[in-house]
Amino acid sequence: MNTLTDKLAGRFLVVDGPDGTGKSTQIQRLCAWLRDAGAAVTAVRDPGGTAIGDRIRAILLDPLHAEMAVRCETMLYMASRAQLVEQIVRPALARGECVLCDRYISATVAYQGAGGMDPDLVRSVGEAAVGGLWPDLTLLLDLPPEVGLSRIRGTLDRVEAKDLAYHRRVRDIFLRQAQEAPERFRVLDASGTPEDVQSRIRQALETWAST
Amino acid sequence: MNTLTDKLAGRFLVVDGPDGTGKSTQIQRLCAWLRDAGAAVTAVRDPGGTAIGDRIRAILLDPLHAEMAVRCETMLYMASRAQLVEQIVRPALARGECVLCDRYISATVAYQGAGGMDPDLVRSVGEAAVGGLWPDLTLLLDLPPEVGLSRIRGTLDRVEAKDLAYHRRVRDIFLRQAQEAPERFRVLDASGTPEDVQSRIRQALETWAST
Repeated sequence: MNTLTDKLAGRFLVVDGPDGTGKSTQIQRLCAWLRDAGAAVTAVRDPGGTAIGDRIRAILLDPLHAEMAVRCETMLYMASRAQLVEQIVRPALARGECVLCDRYISATVAYQGAGGMDPDLVRSVGEAAVGGLWPDLTLLLDLPPEVGLSRIRGTLDRVEAKDLAYHRRVRDIFLRQAQEAPERFRVLDASGTPEDVQSRIRQALETWAST
Repeated sequence: MNTLTDKLAGRFLVVDGPDGTGKSTQIQRLCAWLRDAGAAVTAVRDPGGTAIGDRIRAILLDPLHAEMAVRCETMLYMASRAQLVEQIVRPALARGECVLCDRYISATVAYQGAGGMDPDLVRSVGEAAVGGLWPDLTLLLDLPPEVGLSRIRGTLDRVEAKDLAYHRRVRDIFLRQAQEAPERFRVLDASGTPEDVQSRIRQALETWAST
C-alpha cells in the first residue's frame, strides 16, 4: 500500500463510465480506503465542485431546458470543468495531494459524442478548457447498458431516459477512448456486487502503482 | 438600397468592437434603417438572446464571480452562443432573414485573448461551438481605448474597469482578426458623432452589397 500512496501524491485520478455502473458509491469507498492508508485525497465532482460550477450544473439539470443544443451542453460542461481545474484541481495537485474526480472530459466526449457532436472535436474543446490537464489515470467502469440502466432506482433523469441505442453509443465511445490511450485508462468490469467492483478497482490501482 | 436588401436575405451580420464605441446605439439605428428599407431583420444580442443564454449571461455578469477563470469565461460565452445560433440564428437565416448580432466569436477572441488565452485557440473553440457558422460580414467599430473608455458614463463594469494595457490588447486582437480575414471584416472609425458613425456603417454595407 505504501507504493500506492507514494505514487498517488500529486496525481490526478478520474472514475468515469456509463450510468448505473455504481460510480459514486465506488468513489466514496475508494476515497475512504485511500485516506485510511494515509493518502491526502481531494475528491471532486464534475460538473460542479465550485460555486460557479454549481450554478452551471443547475442550468444543465434544469428540466425546463429541454431545448438545449448539444453544442451548448458541451460548452457548459467544459465551463464548469475549466473552473474546477483552475480553482480546485491544479492547486490540490500542486500541494502534492491526489485528486479523485467523479467524471471528466471522457464523459462529455462519450455523452455529447453520442448526442451528435464529433467526439474528437469534443476532446479538443476539452483540451482548451482545462489547459491540457489530462488525468494520470481514468478508471472506466464498464457495463452493458441493459444491465446498467436496470440498476437505477426511481425515475430516470433526462439523460438516463434516452433510448438504448444512445446508451450503446455512449458505452462504445467510452471504450474507444480507453483503446486509444491504454496507458491512461483501465477498463473495469462493473458487474457483480459493489464489493466485487471495489476489489477490482483497488487491484487495478495497486498494479498501476507498481509499474 | 434594393441591392442591399436583396443581398441581406439569409445573411449573418455582426457588429463588434471594444467598449465605448457606441455599438448598441449604432445597431439600433442600423436595424431601424434596414427595416424601413424593407429588409427582414432579426436582431440578437450575444451573450444572451435565449432563455438558456440569459441564465448563462447572469453567471458571467455576477460580481460575486470575481474568481472566474478565463477558460471558464470563454466556455460560458461559447455555450450561450451555441444556443443562440441553434435556436435563433440558423432558423432565421433559413427563413431568409438577415440576422444582425451584437458581438460574436470575435469578441471572445479579443477579450479572453487579452485575458490570457491563446486567441487562435479561442477561435477554434468558437468554430466548434457554432458548428462553423461564421458571419458573412463583421462591422468592427474601432477607437483608441483612451477615447472609448472616456465615453462610458457611470460606473465601469468588471471588464471596462481593467487597465489600459488590457484594453489595448483587446483592440489589437480585434484589428488582427480583421487583417487576417479582410473579406469578412470592415474596420470602421467610431470617432465623431453617432450620425458620423452611422453614415460610415451604411456606406460600408452598401459598398459590400454592390460587390
